Amino acid sequence: MKKLINDPNNVVQEMLEGFAAAHSGHVRLLGDLNVVVRRDGPVNGKVGLVSGGGSGHEPAHAGYVGAGMLDAACAGDVFASPSVGQILAAIKHVDSGSGVLLIIKNYTGDVLNFELAMDLARENEGVSVDKVIVSDDVSVDPSARTAGRRGIAGTIFIHKIAGARAEAGGTLHDVKASAETALKNLRSMGMALSPCTVPATGKPTFTLPEDEMEIGMGIHGEPGIKRTKIMGADQVAEALLSNITADMPLREGDEVALMTNGLGATPVMELYIMHRAASALLKDMGVAICAGYVGEYMTSLEMSGCSLTVLRLDDGLKSLLFAPSRTPAFVQI
Amino acid sequence: MKKLINDPNNVVQEMLEGFAAAHSGHVRLLGDLNVVVRRDGPVNGKVGLVSGGGSGHEPAHAGYVGAGMLDAACAGDVFASPSVGQILAAIKHVDSGSGVLLIIKNYTGDVLNFELAMDLARENEGVSVDKVIVSDDVSVDPSARTAGRRGIAGTIFIHKIAGARAEAGGTLHDVKASAETALKNLRSMGMALSPCTVPATGKPTFTLPEDEMEIGMGIHGEPGIKRTKIMGADQVAEALLSNITADMPLREGDEVALMTNGLGATPVMELYIMHRAASALLKDMGVAICAGYVGEYMTSLEMSGCSLTVLRLDDGLKSLLFAPSRTPAFVQI
Repeated sequence: MKKLINDPNNVVQEMLEGFAAAHSGHVRLLGDLNVVVRRDGPVNGKVGLVSGGGSGHEPAHAGYVGAGMLDAACAGDVFASPSVGQILAAIKHVDSGSGVLLIIKNYTGDVLNFELAMDLARENEGVSVDKVIVSDDVSVDPSARTAGRRGIAGTIFIHKIAGARAEAGGTLHDVKASAETALKNLRSMGMALSPCTVPATGKPTFTLPEDEMEIGMGIHGEPGIKRTKIMGADQVAEALLSNITADMPLREGDEVALMTNGLGATPVMELYIMHRAASALLKDMGVAICAGYVGEYMTSLEMSGCSLTVLRLDDGLKSLLFAPSRTPAFVQI
Repeated sequence: MKKLINDPNNVVQEMLEGFAAAHSGHVRLLGDLNVVVRRDGPVNGKVGLVSGGGSGHEPAHAGYVGAGMLDAACAGDVFASPSVGQILAAIKHVDSGSGVLLIIKNYTGDVLNFELAMDLARENEGVSVDKVIVSDDVSVDPSARTAGRRGIAGTIFIHKIAGARAEAGGTLHDVKASAETALKNLRSMGMALSPCTVPATGKPTFTLPEDEMEIGMGIHGEPGIKRTKIMGADQVAEALLSNITADMPLREGDEVALMTNGLGATPVMELYIMHRAASALLKDMGVAICAGYVGEYMTSLEMSGCSLTVLRLDDGLKSLLFAPSRTPAFVQI
């Protein structure tokens, strides 16, 4: 295991200290809870937005704390849910009387702990709390046999849409409604060329032969829908997009935002080659790409691979997507 | 070689097409020359800024084209200088009568081709052209036996400082003077844990045993100053910063910008752990960090490792650093 770390047991705390040092104009740490909050928060009269999840997905979620997006992000251990205590503290901190919306990625541990914290905040603290659950990954069969679809990089668009509505003075009901509209129009799918290694275990999360890739792989190395021989970028984009559009048909004239997200070790060059391929496929369908995002938005440590996310836009979503935001990892002017 | 590409011979062109598709609001391609220019350029009356270099360092340099930074970036093949023809076309395109400054990283091929293009533009086109050469990498002995110090991630600060001065209406002389002031106060040093593979060759640029790292390694895999057993992040930061401050002593009360730059495959988490370590060392010296930058600014395909860059600030540099910029990879509000 070759890593630029100190003690594997301290990676989350040290990462957050580095994060707070780098972005002290935007954020600060909430005590020693591994919770990142807006420096200028809580913002009076605004619905508070709390997200979070396991660490190892940086810049998610702390990178989206700031004006126009999240008020707090709770960081669990690597690939492990934040605790109920962390989430409860975040809810109490961001509440300024207008209520709090939780943005939860659909993993069993995350859902359990965020919902428990929600119940406690409601019952013991009298905070008005609601939730949305992000499950944008089309690679999972959402049948009764699974925990449902996973939440992956599309979550960043939910931070942005809900954040913009909250910043514009929306009520908790409004903010949740905007997030749900976005969720209905949001689909993602990822793929991997190579695994990552959790610092505390020192072992790769999976193995892939040198001539194979996995289509549909999750951000913790969860199995995808198929392993194949290495394909060209154009074919990979086609494989991901065809699954996305099979689940959410796009029509000529539709407008979308397209995100090509790197999982950690993928060269920026390759992300742009993937983005080119995905853009061309959408254009061939007569779909207009109103906004393109290429980079590392939700990673898996040093996993090699990428995900594509499509957010279908209407006028309401467009104006929320293009509203200003000012956070460490997502700036919209 | 596991890569998300199509034909290895087309990576640069396809990457640039993806780049232009993703950032069509900011930039466009200049014909089929692999030159990226400001969409709203050339800007009348403004000194034009041209940079570039080998590809494989994305987002450098196209990611810094836009308001407040570069007017054009020339992309060579992977790790190879752009041609004289590309550079000359960029110079002619961005010139609006106020002259053009070239920002050149100190590699033999880059310097040769940029200087040839400069001479041709002056003599045949009557364009007023000047240059600065970036050589921020302290790991190279700048003696007569070498081509001098290499230009690495600190180049982004030169784009920013020169760009802000140009945007504010500075003359060619002013813009060059600001860039030179920044150059005097700029030092970087990198390290690597693992190599990268140039698509066209399919072979790693170097090899490093599983338990070793190289301190001072260049962004094309050029040798550093020593190979050592794997060290902790705190020790690595100390090794890099001690070389930087040996070359540019910092005093209590000095103000700096600090950039922790990922080389391609380094997890974002680890970059923040490195940034924490470097920040702490600077604070121990009584140095104030006015601005922190953590992310992938100048990569080496999928090399694993990072570099640290310190820009010592005076009031003039501070106001140029914090002036607005709006480019795909560097937004300052």
